[in-house]
Amino acid sequence: MSAMIRVSGSSMTTAVAGAVAGVVRQDGSAEVQAIGAKAVNQAAKAIAIARVYLRDDGIDIVTIPTLVDVEVAGEMRTALRFSVIQRADEAGREPA
Amino acid sequence: MSAMIRVSGSSMTTAVAGAVAGVVRQDGSAEVQAIGAKAVNQAAKAIAIARVYLRDDGIDIVTIPTLVDVEVAGEMRTALRFSVIQRADEAGREPA
Repeated sequence: MSAMIRVSGSSMTTAVAGAVAGVVRQDGSAEVQAIGAKAVNQAAKAIAIARVYLRDDGIDIVTIPTLVDVEVAGEMRTALRFSVIQRADEAGREPA
Repeated sequence: MSAMIRVSGSSMTTAVAGAVAGVVRQDGSAEVQAIGAKAVNQAAKAIAIARVYLRDDGIDIVTIPTLVDVEVAGEMRTALRFSVIQRADEAGREPA
């Protein structure tokens, strides 16, 4: 289980990207969670930026988005969780 | 080059998910583009849903988000582009 990075609509994308890159460097993967459109947008942008940071270290990341129900202040909300994992080296395919 | 699926803030997530799943089944990969927080949120949710659809067919997808500059009505905008690709079978790792 890698660290969970919670992103809000006011999170700075570069700060989140730095956190994602740091966790991936240390643990090999990261989990990013966002609730609401603004937060999801910041999270997706941050992962795109983290991808650039990590590419410089020779680390190639992909992400798996999943919808999960989470309780926030006693209320059920649907969150988007992005599992950030390293791409299998042997895949070696670039997206078309 | 796989088909580009353009997502707006008012796109239905299940409709986009169906399109993503259909293109991946046919071409092996898909490209999804969204501009603005609402559209990015719909796109990310749709990919999460497409992942469930495709899993039933034994297809395991991951996505690579990239920030790209696109011209819309003569104006430069930053879009999020999600490359949806199949996960390398040999990777066989589940996210932590």
